Amino acid sequence: MKINVLLHYKRILVCLVLLGYCTTAVSQSGYGLWLDYKKISDASLLNDYQNQIQSVYFPAKSETLDVAREELKLGLDALLGTTTEFSATASSKGTLIVSKFDALDQKIQKNLRKITIPEDGFYIGHVSGNTIITAKEDIGVLYGVFNFLRLLQTQQSIDKLTLLDGPKIDLRILNHWDNLDGTVERGYAGKSLWKWQKLPTYIDQRYIDYARANASIGINGTVLTNVNANAWLLTPGYIDKVAALADTFRPYGVKVYLTARFSAPIEIGQLSTADPLDPEVQQWWKTKIDSVYAKIPDFGGFLVKANSEGQPGPQNYGRTHVDGANMMAEALAPHNGVVLWRAFVYSEHDASDRAKQAYSEFVPMDGDFKENVIIQVKNGPIDFQPREPFHPIFGAMPKTALAMEFQITQEYLGFSTHLVFLPKLFEEVLQADTYQQGKGSLVAKVIDGSLDNHKITAISGVSNIGSDLNWTGHPFAQANWYGYGRLAWNPYLNAEVIAEQWLRSTYSNEEAFVEPMTDLLIESREAVVNYMTPLGLHHIMDTNHHYGPGPWVSELARPEWNPTYYHKTDANGIGFDRTQKGSGAVLQYADPVAQRFEQLDQCPENLLLWFHHLPWDYTLSDGQTLWNSIGLHYQKGVDQVRDMLKVWEQMSPYVDALSHKEVRMLLDIQLQEAIWWKDACMQYFHQYSKLPFPEGMEKPEHSLDYYKSLKHPYAPGI
Amino acid sequence: MKINVLLHYKRILVCLVLLGYCTTAVSQSGYGLWLDYKKISDASLLNDYQNQIQSVYFPAKSETLDVAREELKLGLDALLGTTTEFSATASSKGTLIVSKFDALDQKIQKNLRKITIPEDGFYIGHVSGNTIITAKEDIGVLYGVFNFLRLLQTQQSIDKLTLLDGPKIDLRILNHWDNLDGTVERGYAGKSLWKWQKLPTYIDQRYIDYARANASIGINGTVLTNVNANAWLLTPGYIDKVAALADTFRPYGVKVYLTARFSAPIEIGQLSTADPLDPEVQQWWKTKIDSVYAKIPDFGGFLVKANSEGQPGPQNYGRTHVDGANMMAEALAPHNGVVLWRAFVYSEHDASDRAKQAYSEFVPMDGDFKENVIIQVKNGPIDFQPREPFHPIFGAMPKTALAMEFQITQEYLGFSTHLVFLPKLFEEVLQADTYQQGKGSLVAKVIDGSLDNHKITAISGVSNIGSDLNWTGHPFAQANWYGYGRLAWNPYLNAEVIAEQWLRSTYSNEEAFVEPMTDLLIESREAVVNYMTPLGLHHIMDTNHHYGPGPWVSELARPEWNPTYYHKTDANGIGFDRTQKGSGAVLQYADPVAQRFEQLDQCPENLLLWFHHLPWDYTLSDGQTLWNSIGLHYQKGVDQVRDMLKVWEQMSPYVDALSHKEVRMLLDIQLQEAIWWKDACMQYFHQYSKLPFPEGMEKPEHSLDYYKSLKHPYAPGI
Repeated sequence: MKINVLLHYKRILVCLVLLGYCTTAVSQSGYGLWLDYKKISDASLLNDYQNQIQSVYFPAKSETLDVAREELKLGLDALLGTTTEFSATASSKGTLIVSKFDALDQKIQKNLRKITIPEDGFYIGHVSGNTIITAKEDIGVLYGVFNFLRLLQTQQSIDKLTLLDGPKIDLRILNHWDNLDGTVERGYAGKSLWKWQKLPTYIDQRYIDYARANASIGINGTVLTNVNANAWLLTPGYIDKVAALADTFRPYGVKVYLTARFSAPIEIGQLSTADPLDPEVQQWWKTKIDSVYAKIPDFGGFLVKANSEGQPGPQNYGRTHVDGANMMAEALAPHNGVVLWRAFVYSEHDASDRAKQAYSEFVPMDGDFKENVIIQVKNGPIDFQPREPFHPIFGAMPKTALAMEFQITQEYLGFSTHLVFLPKLFEEVLQADTYQQGKGSLVAKVIDGSLDNHKITAISGVSNIGSDLNWTGHPFAQANWYGYGRLAWNPYLNAEVIAEQWLRSTYSNEEAFVEPMTDLLIESREAVVNYMTPLGLHHIMDTNHHYGPGPWVSELARPEWNPTYYHKTDANGIGFDRTQKGSGAVLQYADPVAQRFEQLDQCPENLLLWFHHLPWDYTLSDGQTLWNSIGLHYQKGVDQVRDMLKVWEQMSPYVDALSHKEVRMLLDIQLQEAIWWKDACMQYFHQYSKLPFPEGMEKPEHSLDYYKSLKHPYAPGI
Repeated sequence: MKINVLLHYKRILVCLVLLGYCTTAVSQSGYGLWLDYKKISDASLLNDYQNQIQSVYFPAKSETLDVAREELKLGLDALLGTTTEFSATASSKGTLIVSKFDALDQKIQKNLRKITIPEDGFYIGHVSGNTIITAKEDIGVLYGVFNFLRLLQTQQSIDKLTLLDGPKIDLRILNHWDNLDGTVERGYAGKSLWKWQKLPTYIDQRYIDYARANASIGINGTVLTNVNANAWLLTPGYIDKVAALADTFRPYGVKVYLTARFSAPIEIGQLSTADPLDPEVQQWWKTKIDSVYAKIPDFGGFLVKANSEGQPGPQNYGRTHVDGANMMAEALAPHNGVVLWRAFVYSEHDASDRAKQAYSEFVPMDGDFKENVIIQVKNGPIDFQPREPFHPIFGAMPKTALAMEFQITQEYLGFSTHLVFLPKLFEEVLQADTYQQGKGSLVAKVIDGSLDNHKITAISGVSNIGSDLNWTGHPFAQANWYGYGRLAWNPYLNAEVIAEQWLRSTYSNEEAFVEPMTDLLIESREAVVNYMTPLGLHHIMDTNHHYGPGPWVSELARPEWNPTYYHKTDANGIGFDRTQKGSGAVLQYADPVAQRFEQLDQCPENLLLWFHHLPWDYTLSDGQTLWNSIGLHYQKGVDQVRDMLKVWEQMSPYVDALSHKEVRMLLDIQLQEAIWWKDACMQYFHQYSKLPFPEGMEKPEHSLDYYKSLKHPYAPGI
């Protein structure tokens, strides 16, 4: 049986609960995530729960069922403040029955005959005075247990419960951009979790706790390594290490994937080429992949970044993405492995709008990829900005499996210092209507396969997890890991619901806490847009590390690496003309989306400068000039952070003192940096507009030269 | 008042103690270090303690006294299982009185008039039925409190206690080799603790817990950054960040030091030279140092690695170490700052034995350094090997303040995977007799200043601390941080006493645990010598990362970077001839030490091949040939690790299950790697000796080619 740090912490909590004393202390480090089960504070609800769960009948006979049973005990002991009784039969009333469906008593099976439990899903309901958690597979039982505990954690009634739920997307994956040297590209939460040198013998307790946390939100796959890949990872010694991780994650239903460096046949295989049409190369990959499966029978597959930002790929040999992806797919297919092939490409040899390039390159290949190839597409056409329109590829490749790639780590959104609730951003993308098959062709329907009847569906989130005590650096960044998992399970979930569930599970069920904090989380995303890139501005972060503003950066080798490329500020105005008169990027969207973006009067103002270059005196819907509106948006972002600070100050009764102080310090920095963004950008734009700063905008504290002089050569994440 | 994570954990423990339940659970992550106060298990002793500490009188009126008072409450609450009563007076018997001496009641002062409390030290004793902890300074009170709690933790009687103690070395410093990008050179425990990007606003709770842990063992200084220094650290933005750390550490008596890059005047000062005799350069350093003190009034000073392994220094301008160190010292002197100037130099232009070079370069400068310059000397003449003779500089520069530099991080001793108790190594060095002023001229007496009446004394330990949950990677590596601190306080302490105190404080006071585990810790150092570098072998680790064996490495650019330089194996034999007929390094030692190392029949066998090149059939004192003895030493090292595993298996009743499993996995790796060392080295030496492996030595598992083929490009710490 696996032993669990959190479980031991829970045992302490049980003691505490019995004493009614210092019940939040254990969660202060943040290590416990949203799984820090606390005793139900509402006495009548507690009584109700206790009556309904007088004992548990849970026959467990597999690794996965064992961890589910352990989790249930851990949770119930803490939540109910009792020692859970496990009974050998389900005879008496008030029993919680947890079992795979086919192991249920025949009478109960008959009773539930009308219920069709979805694959990997579960059913929670009542039969003859007992509560039942059941599923077709072991993993469904584990998911059911976690969901049942979440109901209790968030103090939902379980009186007349009938809950049938299952994942809408098959592969719900985290992408770790972790390097073999322990650094994490765009990581702001410490080192990589993977201690390669000590693997395979040493299994860090964190690996188990990581798998458990992922299972609790339905994540079922993890790409261990950076998309900027290292061939060394595919040598036998490392495969042994990966296998040890796979063994550790297996009971929790989390499969392991790796990033494959396209030139590996040369670098570790001593071949002279990595040409995907070369039979020797094909054989090398087959042999390699067979050897991986010999160690890891349920290996998930490869994630590949090819011919992108200097990574090798099939184009190095005059071949196409199809050639490259299909070669790997063929070698993986016999083992049911997949290739996640990234569409994040833009070429230094292509002078056209970078926003157009992935679409231009990939859409013509629709239908050419093998069935186990999934094209992984970032949420927007540029690169994980605070706001982008949805990526035009979504809906435009109906014959190809498309995975969404979200970025959970906040590369462009304030690192692990800024409180930004990303599910709000994710929701906006998933709910966007592509109109590719008429109204209602939501991005979510592309991703879950329902729009185009795809056989495999997938979603990836670039991890924000590291070795920091609290996993994610900012305690509230845990909500982004959590929210990503919840949306990967069900891309139609509401961001507010997610926020509320996370807040209740992590901190408190007090309404005086939950309500204002839900509002704060929801508003936090618009705040970062306002103080960084309002009105459709994008990619004006300082170069390379992307820390702070750098709208003046203009001298990098590739034009599309420069912020000036994106905002195109001049004496006349600001913005990137992507209309038909401009780069024509709007044409990559289906009508009426293309029309909406094209037409100034229809274009959403929050994407205005993404699609249009407009004069400073252009008048917005509220009557403000563009210049004034930009300034007032920056100001609003700053004010929103001030409001967040005020709200947080009032939350001290509901949060332990240490955690409260920690978040306050982080919000202090967020405010400083929001002001920095406002002042630096407005000073910069001011040199072109020559207009006075709008009334209501606080004047910049320093000169433009001052902001340009700030250098951060050791900003984290690079 | 500072809030403390550990304090909160303690509050939980109190609850647990009241329940008599799961008392070790909190300490399982290892975050609590040796300060995880547990309730006294011996009932009669507990009763005794409770009687003697019925209440506490502790008037606290400074930041340092506040943390001392908080610590005392934390400790007593947990250890005694009660809520400590603080009284407003010291009237009744059974009161613990904690106070600065001059604030004590006049009667008590009179009673203690014969006691002379050492500077920064404390007195613990009894007056009229009360226990007293007193000191001249606030920091002495804090040290007294920690020492008193240690007495209780280790279950010592406090009945007739009279304890007068003070530090024997002034500056007791940790050296962090932490880079500004968060990596740690030779770090095996995660990332740097210092989150530069979030400083100065965000004060990680770990900074406070770090300072507290250091104060508990008497460490009073910390060099935050790598000796391979970065000039950027001295820019104003970073000084603000450093000041925030200094403010955080100040209540705990821990001063901040920085590493100064010698070329900083060029790199960040826009000067054209860093010549220490250039008035502009001198002025630049004065201005820079004044600006540091404006922010950090108690700044400790600089640690400098100059003209060593590519670092810039005064020799770049035809100047000497004296010129360089004195220039900085002059600028620091008005602020009472010091320069720690490292003697770790060896030149690519000097073909002589590397072991001789630091002595050759520095000893002639004895007497030329300013009073606030301290020359920091590694414990041995090469580089932190499992065993070296003491450095010949010790005792040879009587007119110069000399600091010891120990390495706590296990660069050459198995990283954070091998259990090696380093205080045993430190003790061996400190107890070595230099004979520089006749018998009894111990290295410890050089370091504590008693041999040469030095005004400033200092000791440095290269930190093994990182962001890992348990601080040091291996849970037992905490003992090396602890033991370094204890020896820095008192370099005459016995390693066994330290081992026992640490074991009792960290794990258990059960004799069945303490006795075998003390033996295990003490033996662990000889084990690593045996399976890595027996009989005086040294520096045969694989290159660069120093992970595993690499005796065959011979093609690095500088001869003294190659293991072959150090073992000089050939058909005739093995070892480095440093006698008068060889490199003459023995002559750097005073007689009779030089004679002892020179004479084969007197040379300690554990340093034999350090000083002598000997034929394979040379006969050792036990009648074995050299060849056989080498093999049997390697085997003994392996067997010792097997024994450690066996002992550890028996310790499961005294250690929580998670921690027990963790250490067992690490010992498993240690055994694998010990065998790897034996097999690889013996296969390599075998090609020269051509002799059969000795009886009793397990045959190598693989060929030499196999061991040579192993590559570890991503080994940690580089």
